[in-house]
This record gives sequence, C-alpha cells and structure tokens, in this order.
Amino acid sequence: MQTLSENKCFDGVQGVYTHQSKATGTDMTFGLFLPAEAQDGPVPVLWYLSGLTCTHENAMVKAGAQSWAAEQGIALVFPDTSPRGEGVADDPEYDLGQGAGFYVNATQKPWAPHYNMYDYVTRDLPGLLFNEFALDPERQSIFGHSMGGHGALTMAMNLPERYRSVSAFAPLCNPAGAVWGRKQLTAYLGDDESKWSQHDASLLMAQKGFDGPVLIDIGTDDQFIEFLAPEALATAIAQRRQQATFRMQPGYDHSYFFVSSFMEDHINFHAQALYA
Amino acid sequence: MQTLSENKCFDGVQGVYTHQSKATGTDMTFGLFLPAEAQDGPVPVLWYLSGLTCTHENAMVKAGAQSWAAEQGIALVFPDTSPRGEGVADDPEYDLGQGAGFYVNATQKPWAPHYNMYDYVTRDLPGLLFNEFALDPERQSIFGHSMGGHGALTMAMNLPERYRSVSAFAPLCNPAGAVWGRKQLTAYLGDDESKWSQHDASLLMAQKGFDGPVLIDIGTDDQFIEFLAPEALATAIAQRRQQATFRMQPGYDHSYFFVSSFMEDHINFHAQALYA
Repeated sequence: MQTLSENKCFDGVQGVYTHQSKATGTDMTFGLFLPAEAQDGPVPVLWYLSGLTCTHENAMVKAGAQSWAAEQGIALVFPDTSPRGEGVADDPEYDLGQGAGFYVNATQKPWAPHYNMYDYVTRDLPGLLFNEFALDPERQSIFGHSMGGHGALTMAMNLPERYRSVSAFAPLCNPAGAVWGRKQLTAYLGDDESKWSQHDASLLMAQKGFDGPVLIDIGTDDQFIEFLAPEALATAIAQRRQQATFRMQPGYDHSYFFVSSFMEDHINFHAQALYA
Repeated sequence: MQTLSENKCFDGVQGVYTHQSKATGTDMTFGLFLPAEAQDGPVPVLWYLSGLTCTHENAMVKAGAQSWAAEQGIALVFPDTSPRGEGVADDPEYDLGQGAGFYVNATQKPWAPHYNMYDYVTRDLPGLLFNEFALDPERQSIFGHSMGGHGALTMAMNLPERYRSVSAFAPLCNPAGAVWGRKQLTAYLGDDESKWSQHDASLLMAQKGFDGPVLIDIGTDDQFIEFLAPEALATAIAQRRQQATFRMQPGYDHSYFFVSSFMEDHINFHAQALYA
C-alpha cells in the first residue's frame, strides 16, 4: 500500500492510498477518512459507494461527509467505481466500463477478468483496511449514491452478517428492469437473467430483505428518476414489512447538492446502528 | 443574467448564473446559495472569495458551506477569481492572469482593461445581486481562502461601512512583501509600490483596521505558509488592538480539507454579526 496524500480534516485525517488488488488485478486507489478517535483504537467503518463516472474522489470532496463522521467518530471508506488503466477494457459511453463497474464480478469478456468490483469492495479492500488501519470489522455499515446505492443495497442483502445498517441516495432500485442496469448486467454477467437477481435491490428485497434498518432518499425532481425505478423497491419494502424509511424528498435532483443535503441524516442513521 | 443551473440544496437553492460585467468587459459566472428563508424576504449575504486557480465552483462544491449557511438563513455568493475568455490576457503560470485576478483593478497592460476584479466584486456584482435576488444590502459580510482571504480582508478595510465582519482561511497576509503578491502587484499595478498598500491586509491593518470582528485561521502545516506571511498580519492586529481572533490550527494544511474543517466556525462567526 502506498500513501498518495494525507490531509488533516475535522481533527482526523483524510487519506488517499493506492494498492495492488487481487480481485481486479490492477492498482486501485481509495479514500479513507479516519476520525481523531482512531488514534485510541479501532473505530466503526461506514462504506460509501459512488455512482457512475465517479472515482474515489467525488464523494470525498463534494459530500461534506467528514464533518458528521468526525462528530460521530466513524471512519469513511471511499472506494473507486471500477478498475482503471491501460490494460483494462473500456467503453466510449459513460455508463459502461471504467467508472461504471456496477459492483458485480464480470463473467463476460472483455470485462472479465478485471471487473470484479463486488469482490474488491467486499473482500479485497476490507482485507487491506482491517490490517492497516484502526478499524473495527464488527462495526460496519454501508451506503452509496445512484449506482453506489445499488451496490450498497445489494451487498448489504447478500452479506447478511456483514453490515449493521444500509442506506442510499437515489439508488438504482431495480437494475434488472431498468435502462440503467439491463445494459450493464447483460454486458458484465451475460444474457441469462437468472444470474442478475443477486444484483437487483428490489428482487433481493422481495427474496431476502435486510436484517437491520434501511434508509432511502430520492429527490422528486431527480432527472434520472425513470432509470432508478423507486416504485419497485418501495413496493418490495412494503410487501416484505422490511424495517425501513423510504423518503421522496420534494424538489431535490440527482446531484451532490442533494446528497450533501441529507448526508448528516444518513451518517447519524448509521451511527445509531454502529453504536447500538 | 442567465441561469446556468439551479439545484435544491439544504432546502434552499444553489444556483449558477452568468452575466455581462461592465467592470471586466466580459461575461462572468458566479454561484449563489439562497437559503429557504429568501422566499419570505431579503436575507443576509456572505461573500466568499476563492484562491488561485479556482473558479466560482470550487468552494461551492468542496467547502460544505451550504449546510451551515442554511442553518443560519444566510446567502452565500461565490464569484469567479478573474475575467476569462479568448480576448482576455493570460499567463502560462497558475499564479498570474486567468484564475489569479488578485482582487485589484489592473492599471498595466495587458491586464488592463479586463482585470478589474476589485470593482467587479464590490460594485458590479452587488448591483446585479441586490436587483435580482432577495438579498439585504444592509447585512453583508465577507470571507475567503488564500488569495480570496487577501481579497476579503482588503475589501473589508477599504470599504468600512460595507461589511459587518470579515474572516479568512490561510489568507495572503502581506502580498506587498511576499512571493505571492509582489509578482502580481507589479504585473497588475506597476512598479510604484505606493499603489500597492490598499491591497495589502497587513499594511491596511496598520493604517486603518476594521470596524468590526475579524477571524483568521491558518494551518501550522500549511505548505505555503512562507508565502502567506501570517506574522505580518498578527503583528499589525496586535499593535492596532484590533478586535480579532487569529488562530494557528495545529496540523492543518492549505487544502479545502482545512477550509471545510473550520467552515462552520466562520459561518457562525459571521451570523453573529449579521443578526446583531
């Protein structure tokens, strides 16, 4: 692991690091905010998964999250959204390839063997983090925005013991049934739709649900709301009687101005679970 | 005036607008955060001036400021740092020309006639803003970062009735005596150093001071601290018995991770003056 930068931030440290990932077979860069409390021992970890076109950097600089994480004594992890580099397949469109890993393990060429963001986020990066930093593996939660909200919800439901709480800003709620999703799941996982279901939050919610609290915020003026398919997830939550708060926020759009507006709520929501 | 974007943010609106400026003779773009309270009538205005290489956008997306401005019901203005465009002189270095207007009115070619950022921020943009938006001209304060801290401090002292309070993150404290300053003041204002004094916060503090509260934060690990010359301003404040809080913040550097860490303090500081 190599340190690219460390800046003091809200009495803690906002670091950026790079490491060789087995899961992707590439160098991967991530951001980590460690609150001051990490100097005295392991702190809870909140994973933030970013959306299409983002790197590790967007949320780290635009979401205002460190302020509230510092107040709560919680670490924030900001992984990248895909493998990158010259030997890594890409697509001219913004919604496939680099910057658009969709948090799956690709089985189809040319995306296999590098596009294994599910393994990267759930296995590879945790292995490194809990080794190198004062982080408590028994206290993890996860959230994300857009494609990253999809990633957070699907990982939380697929790994029931792992995360204490899950939340999402404007998540892709039903990628197996939406424009943002069908294209990528076909490309990464192939035509057999039965392979897609563990990467669809609405299908997972209908089948398994989540053994902990769930918080979803979506702006009523989200310019991509048709692609998000919030009604599929709302229905599944209601039918399952899942412990959840599902909010349509009047007037907000898909941007980080929306994300930052509710960041404090989300971090405090996770803090309740992480300190329970 | 033309609206480039408007995003709902913390119950208010983060807008970006462009307009034809008389002061610079160019189109100028600025950001404006209007809190929800602006729907019911004019709100106080806090001007934020940015540093070298920044546009209107950096602080708007990286400082986390809207959160606390919304809590206080205060509008934030984010002007650009220079005129821009094809007909506008520039320099290959990052610290002169476009992105580096230094908040002066240039008298020297090729910077005259476009580089009039002092008039732009103090005359041109206020004229537009108080006409177009629910903003209260009787309640204005000003702050900024680095070159923008220099701009805020010098404007506040040059226009004693205008701003109720002034603050700065890592300001250029003594540009007439420092690497970041002598080059630019020479380029924009010429060799006659007597013309520089009204654009040097330490000299103005010694001569005039400010009739209101002053807050300065500088990181002890600021990588540019030699260029900032904080000792000149600290000395001038102490000698003048100026009402001020001057803080050296241990371990912080020059980045927006530092700025955002103390943004809440600065906005609350200005709110006290704006609501007094």
